[in-house]
Amino acid sequence: MPRLVKRTSKKAGLPPGTLIHIGEIKTKKPRITIIDYDEAQLEEKEVKQIEECFPRKDKPTVTWINIDGIHQVEIIEKLGSHFGLHPLLLEDILNTEQRPKMEDFDDYIFVVLKMLYYDGKKDEIEVEQVSLILGSNFVISFQEREGDVFDPIRERIRKGKGHIRKAGADYLAYALLDTIVDSCFLILETAGERIEDTEQQLATNPVPETLHLIRKLKKEMIILRKSIWPLREVVSGLERCESALIQKSTGAYLRDVYDHTIQVMDTVESFRDMVSGMLDIYLSSISNKLNEVMKVLTIFAVIFIPLTFVAGIYGMNFEFMPELRWHWGYPAVLIVMASIASGMLVYFRRKKWF
Amino acid sequence: MPRLVKRTSKKAGLPPGTLIHIGEIKTKKPRITIIDYDEAQLEEKEVKQIEECFPRKDKPTVTWINIDGIHQVEIIEKLGSHFGLHPLLLEDILNTEQRPKMEDFDDYIFVVLKMLYYDGKKDEIEVEQVSLILGSNFVISFQEREGDVFDPIRERIRKGKGHIRKAGADYLAYALLDTIVDSCFLILETAGERIEDTEQQLATNPVPETLHLIRKLKKEMIILRKSIWPLREVVSGLERCESALIQKSTGAYLRDVYDHTIQVMDTVESFRDMVSGMLDIYLSSISNKLNEVMKVLTIFAVIFIPLTFVAGIYGMNFEFMPELRWHWGYPAVLIVMASIASGMLVYFRRKKWF
Amino acid sequence: MPRLVKRTSKKAGLPPGTLIHIGEIKTKKPRITIIDYDEAQLEEKEVKQIEECFPRKDKPTVTWINIDGIHQVEIIEKLGSHFGLHPLLLEDILNTEQRPKMEDFDDYIFVVLKMLYYDGKKDEIEVEQVSLILGSNFVISFQEREGDVFDPIRERIRKGKGHIRKAGADYLAYALLDTIVDSCFLILETAGERIEDTEQQLATNPVPETLHLIRKLKKEMIILRKSIWPLREVVSGLERCESALIQKSTGAYLRDVYDHTIQVMDTVESFRDMVSGMLDIYLSSISNKLNEVMKVLTIFAVIFIPLTFVAGIYGMNFEFMPELRWHWGYPAVLIVMASIASGMLVYFRRKKWF
Amino acid sequence: MPRLVKRTSKKAGLPPGTLIHIGEIKTKKPRITIIDYDEAQLEEKEVKQIEECFPRKDKPTVTWINIDGIHQVEIIEKLGSHFGLHPLLLEDILNTEQRPKMEDFDDYIFVVLKMLYYDGKKDEIEVEQVSLILGSNFVISFQEREGDVFDPIRERIRKGKGHIRKAGADYLAYALLDTIVDSCFLILETAGERIEDTEQQLATNPVPETLHLIRKLKKEMIILRKSIWPLREVVSGLERCESALIQKSTGAYLRDVYDHTIQVMDTVESFRDMVSGMLDIYLSSISNKLNEVMKVLTIFAVIFIPLTFVAGIYGMNFEFMPELRWHWGYPAVLIVMASIASGMLVYFRRKKWF
Amino acid sequence: MPRLVKRTSKKAGLPPGTLIHIGEIKTKKPRITIIDYDEAQLEEKEVKQIEECFPRKDKPTVTWINIDGIHQVEIIEKLGSHFGLHPLLLEDILNTEQRPKMEDFDDYIFVVLKMLYYDGKKDEIEVEQVSLILGSNFVISFQEREGDVFDPIRERIRKGKGHIRKAGADYLAYALLDTIVDSCFLILETAGERIEDTEQQLATNPVPETLHLIRKLKKEMIILRKSIWPLREVVSGLERCESALIQKSTGAYLRDVYDHTIQVMDTVESFRDMVSGMLDIYLSSISNKLNEVMKVLTIFAVIFIPLTFVAGIYGMNFEFMPELRWHWGYPAVLIVMASIASGMLVYFRRKKWF
Repeated sequence: MPRLVKRTSKKAGLPPGTLIHIGEIKTKKPRITIIDYDEAQLEEKEVKQIEECFPRKDKPTVTWINIDGIHQVEIIEKLGSHFGLHPLLLEDILNTEQRPKMEDFDDYIFVVLKMLYYDGKKDEIEVEQVSLILGSNFVISFQEREGDVFDPIRERIRKGKGHIRKAGADYLAYALLDTIVDSCFLILETAGERIEDTEQQLATNPVPETLHLIRKLKKEMIILRKSIWPLREVVSGLERCESALIQKSTGAYLRDVYDHTIQVMDTVESFRDMVSGMLDIYLSSISNKLNEVMKVLTIFAVIFIPLTFVAGIYGMNFEFMPELRWHWGYPAVLIVMASIASGMLVYFRRKKWF
Repeated sequence: MPRLVKRTSKKAGLPPGTLIHIGEIKTKKPRITIIDYDEAQLEEKEVKQIEECFPRKDKPTVTWINIDGIHQVEIIEKLGSHFGLHPLLLEDILNTEQRPKMEDFDDYIFVVLKMLYYDGKKDEIEVEQVSLILGSNFVISFQEREGDVFDPIRERIRKGKGHIRKAGADYLAYALLDTIVDSCFLILETAGERIEDTEQQLATNPVPETLHLIRKLKKEMIILRKSIWPLREVVSGLERCESALIQKSTGAYLRDVYDHTIQVMDTVESFRDMVSGMLDIYLSSISNKLNEVMKVLTIFAVIFIPLTFVAGIYGMNFEFMPELRWHWGYPAVLIVMASIASGMLVYFRRKKWF
Repeated sequence: MPRLVKRTSKKAGLPPGTLIHIGEIKTKKPRITIIDYDEAQLEEKEVKQIEECFPRKDKPTVTWINIDGIHQVEIIEKLGSHFGLHPLLLEDILNTEQRPKMEDFDDYIFVVLKMLYYDGKKDEIEVEQVSLILGSNFVISFQEREGDVFDPIRERIRKGKGHIRKAGADYLAYALLDTIVDSCFLILETAGERIEDTEQQLATNPVPETLHLIRKLKKEMIILRKSIWPLREVVSGLERCESALIQKSTGAYLRDVYDHTIQVMDTVESFRDMVSGMLDIYLSSISNKLNEVMKVLTIFAVIFIPLTFVAGIYGMNFEFMPELRWHWGYPAVLIVMASIASGMLVYFRRKKWF
Repeated sequence: MPRLVKRTSKKAGLPPGTLIHIGEIKTKKPRITIIDYDEAQLEEKEVKQIEECFPRKDKPTVTWINIDGIHQVEIIEKLGSHFGLHPLLLEDILNTEQRPKMEDFDDYIFVVLKMLYYDGKKDEIEVEQVSLILGSNFVISFQEREGDVFDPIRERIRKGKGHIRKAGADYLAYALLDTIVDSCFLILETAGERIEDTEQQLATNPVPETLHLIRKLKKEMIILRKSIWPLREVVSGLERCESALIQKSTGAYLRDVYDHTIQVMDTVESFRDMVSGMLDIYLSSISNKLNEVMKVLTIFAVIFIPLTFVAGIYGMNFEFMPELRWHWGYPAVLIVMASIASGMLVYFRRKKWF
Repeated sequence: MPRLVKRTSKKAGLPPGTLIHIGEIKTKKPRITIIDYDEAQLEEKEVKQIEECFPRKDKPTVTWINIDGIHQVEIIEKLGSHFGLHPLLLEDILNTEQRPKMEDFDDYIFVVLKMLYYDGKKDEIEVEQVSLILGSNFVISFQEREGDVFDPIRERIRKGKGHIRKAGADYLAYALLDTIVDSCFLILETAGERIEDTEQQLATNPVPETLHLIRKLKKEMIILRKSIWPLREVVSGLERCESALIQKSTGAYLRDVYDHTIQVMDTVESFRDMVSGMLDIYLSSISNKLNEVMKVLTIFAVIFIPLTFVAGIYGMNFEFMPELRWHWGYPAVLIVMASIASGMLVYFRRKKWF
């Protein structure tokens, strides 16, 4: 489970625009890849130094610079100063606690998003921050670690599949956004399955372990919600913004992403509803079980306590206890006991205790 | 109970507009029917190939193409390319997880809806996606399976009953919409009955089975809500949209559908309120019962424990226990025991334990 | 308690404007009364045939047609066709499940409302639908059953008391509306009293019956809320609508009704708040009682169990038990027992168990 | 605790503007006082007849007429007809159930407010309705009973302290409003103290009495909220209204009152949050205690039940029980019993039961 | 934990603008420091008398007057009259209960904020009020006590680090605001850690102490929320206000602060969500434990009660009990007892009780 709050406080008191990486370091060395394409040509390479990207800025082709690993502040700094990015923007890229947002700086649009994936090993939802800068003919994307999420887009560019090679940088930015939003569905599927499993367990045999599962689902829903709610503002901001950087034809695609975002949010809210009710149902089940246990105890106690008392009576050592001398005393007492016991059983039957 | 999330993730990474069917396949072979009518004439037939529908597009009469079963992607594809439909729209038709929405593409209006029905056999609410495309003189409707929901409309067209034969394609689209919204009332009725049954059970004799019923109702309410809430936006979007495709006279009818939608939503919210309180009442009932059980146990234990102790005292084998030798010892002890027991009973009476 | 959902589904699939009565039939034969007045004259009569009302339409005096009982569809139908009412409006009058609403049809304004009254015999809140049609010089009102709610208005018209004889049809419509909203206060009073009684019971002696009362109050609040919330929209719609049918001077009166509506809603919300907390308090009380019961049981058990054990020890039949032969053995054991018991009592005292 | 709903129903059916006093009569005889001032002069007197106030209306000085006790309808009636007040306004003054509101009648502004005070004797929050009418050079205030809340304002007028003697009637109205809003802080303080006391009790030693306190606080919060929420609309209405009666310079003061109102509301909401959580904490505490009690019972029972059983074994009267004849039988049994007991204790220790 | 409501009531009835300090006195003697700078020069000193600040008002350099300790009313009064500040503003500075707000007085902008810090010694969140006045070339800041929160800004001014020496008074005000908002992150971190610790405790071993922790967290969340929610309005008010005092270039920085504010609020809401669920989980855990305890009790009781009864039977002193004379009677009884016990154990195993 990701920490609730990272050490953002280490920034407190520093001047705005001071570049400090906030968050875990998730990759060893940042990896910089460039894909440069238009309808006719395609160039793809991995560079060692960020400076190698700079000449691309003024070429007419669409350039996609992808940086995996954001903890080397100087890379971001150099990039920022060459591409003329606002210092506050660079600060936001480095701060992995940044809330998803979209900002229009006229010359470029800046988008921060959260990408969610389920880490099977840790059995936890992981949150990764992805930042995108969309310029007139370039897209720069920042990921916290090397990942294969954007591989299908690379493939589409390489093969010239779909609309992508013909379209501009805004369509590329859309494709990245779409991929990130689509990756939410995967997380919703695994979450949905775990919710149903827990539901199932709750219905058939709720054990203390179930409580642990519910607690975990609850926390996951809070994290999902915190990551996904601001997404809507981001996407609707992009759709509505009247920047010259976004062509009119891309609008329909952004609207489609927006639809998906709303759907993701709807699902998260439904999940929250389901999970929030689980605890009450768990509590009710536990109460049911306790009631069951108590009934068993009560039936036994209430039947045997009077019998034991009767046995106790005739276990007393008084010299003058006439019954003890009767020949049929013992069977008579046994019959009395049997009647008491069956009386009790009838009483409990009537009360529908068993 | 429908799965919470279907495998929408299989689309992740594919270019937008890639046509993939998402959802269960609910019918064997898609069935395509055409009804072509104006005030004077009526033609109705079932076609094997989707291409047979294409000539209808340019006829002045109103054409209603209904497709039951959407899993054959090529049908949708061909239809889309002939009628000039946007690829994202086709994608939405195929994705049965699509959130209800209404989109105005100038030349045609696209509507996605959820139709709910109660599957008595599975004892579950089933959700089916219905898509409508309204063009200037045609309506294309897509259902997941063959159903008889639209039969009354077919009947009205055949018999020329009501306004329908005189009106245009927009009125037909309205009639379909109205039918779908009306079908919600049926589901609300069965849900309402089950809520009242559960309420009844809760009031008279809550058993662990009741908890299961409540849990099921809760989940149903979440599904109902998720399907019905977006309906309002869809219908109000249609009512407010200033498309030339919708004549002014149809507005009053759409407002009527809107009223019904609000009423459906109101009812769903009332149901949610009722169901959400049930669990607490169940818990209270269980607590009541537990209390009852505990009182019985306590009364018995508290009365007999001291008596048994007294019997135990005189069961001790000390040589020098003068009471054991007294002639009236035994009756005296019995009297003492009776007094203890009645004292206890008086105490419990005062505490109103029985 | 009124049914949650009436059989509105029987309308499903019928063309819009099909007139079907939905709801219980609450009166045997519809009763039609006409009051026709202006400042100078007054005519009041009961008619057998709805056709007798028709000539009134074009007279300059204010005509109030009141119809008690709406299950005879043909009456509504004839009225509708003579007064030129929209078929969807007639449908709404007949559907007693209609959500309260206000619609401006230019020539007339249509209002649907719910009137609540407390049925003492059934010990339930009853909901009755009242529809009003305000034309330029007439008001037509529809009630589900004969009632005396509007009698004071009739009296005011007869006696020329207040403003009413001087004012137009809009003032009459306002007066009817005001009467309906005022009737809510009566229901709130009885509800408030029952809430306070239940509160009282909860505070002094919560019994399982209290749970039943709370459950009933909860359901009533849901019904009240569903009926009263839409009222606000209706009244504010009337107040804001710029119809020529409503004179400016009536505006202040409508604002007054609006104030009352807000007050009714505020009270319903406060009631909901109170009732929603009751169940938790009931549960807490039950837990308190259970705790009390358990303490009594525990005190008795924990005191006597060791004593009985000691008695059991000296009830064993070993041949070589030296204590049994001691002369002071018996009193010594009694003293040991007394010390154990008092030690226990001191322990419980310290734990503040009694 | 004030009744939830007063008998407002007695108005039902009467024509609007019918003057009926609704509410408790809280003072014997209405008391009418006049303060008439401008920067230079001051006149203050108590009058017997309301008619004595009438000449003041047309004097250029600021006149403040204060009426304590509103149950004598004729006073309100006469005042209304002389000052030309709307009948609906008079009705609202007399109805102590009126929701706080502000209405601009062009010639005068009408404000209804609730004043809250804590009645130490009854240990309850009391609600009193205060109505204000602000005219061009007069303010008329209505209170339900004689009170000293406005005394500091009288003092300020008398001593010419502050801005008040130089300013107009609108400033006087503001001063009254400010006093009423300030009086809310007092009630919040006492409420806050009682909440903290209850919190304290909950933390240290929750007893059934605590439940009663929580129940009472809950109800108080509902009453506070109902009285204070509409206040915001009233004050913001005054601030925003563009009446000629309110000078621009008074705007800053009204904004200040508005700030206080928001602060009062914030505090009430925080209180509600705190109180709403209390019941759950109470329930958790009770559960804790029950658990504690059950552990004590269980430890004792589980230790002694087997021991008593062993003692029971050797209390049996079989002729052939070899152990009974062993010389070390008795000590051996005692040792066995001690081992059982210590085994149990070790087990409970491990389970951390004590 | 700060008191819920401070004694604001002592102001009740006083004329507006009466200067009274409300709140704790947190510092002995107010400390006044001045920093006066522009790009070229810097002067910094501590003054004894507030009058020494006055000449700074008309100098072209940026002047920052910081006052630690606000309980000496005359300092605020003198400052107010020299700088021409509105009396209501001065009142707000002195009232530490003031709700965070931003007010534009044309010549200067007034901002009230809450600064939160965690007092490790008291183990409580402390709230301190900070007021800022931004004029054309000066900023006056008021703190309740001497603190080092603003030291980094002083350092930046001294060293000429960052943008600050080149920018105007509005940038200084922004820097102070940013520092205050950043200080919230620190409090969120400590709160987050404590929430996670409590979560951990809840998951592994919930004890009554955990309930106390949850109760405390709950209260803290209420305080955090009350202090942080109004912050958003303040910052967005500053960002949107079109005052000439705020240069356009500062807008981007204010937007950045706004982003942080939203992030703080999001986190507080997530925390609230987490804490609000804790109590239910605690209750469920307690129920689990109770269930466990009851099972142990029940297993023991139910096994031994019948055995003890059997032993009691053969402890009876009837003369004619044939079994007592049988040679194998004793072993037979022991075997019967063993069978009863194992039967019970099998039954409990099947019920999965252990």
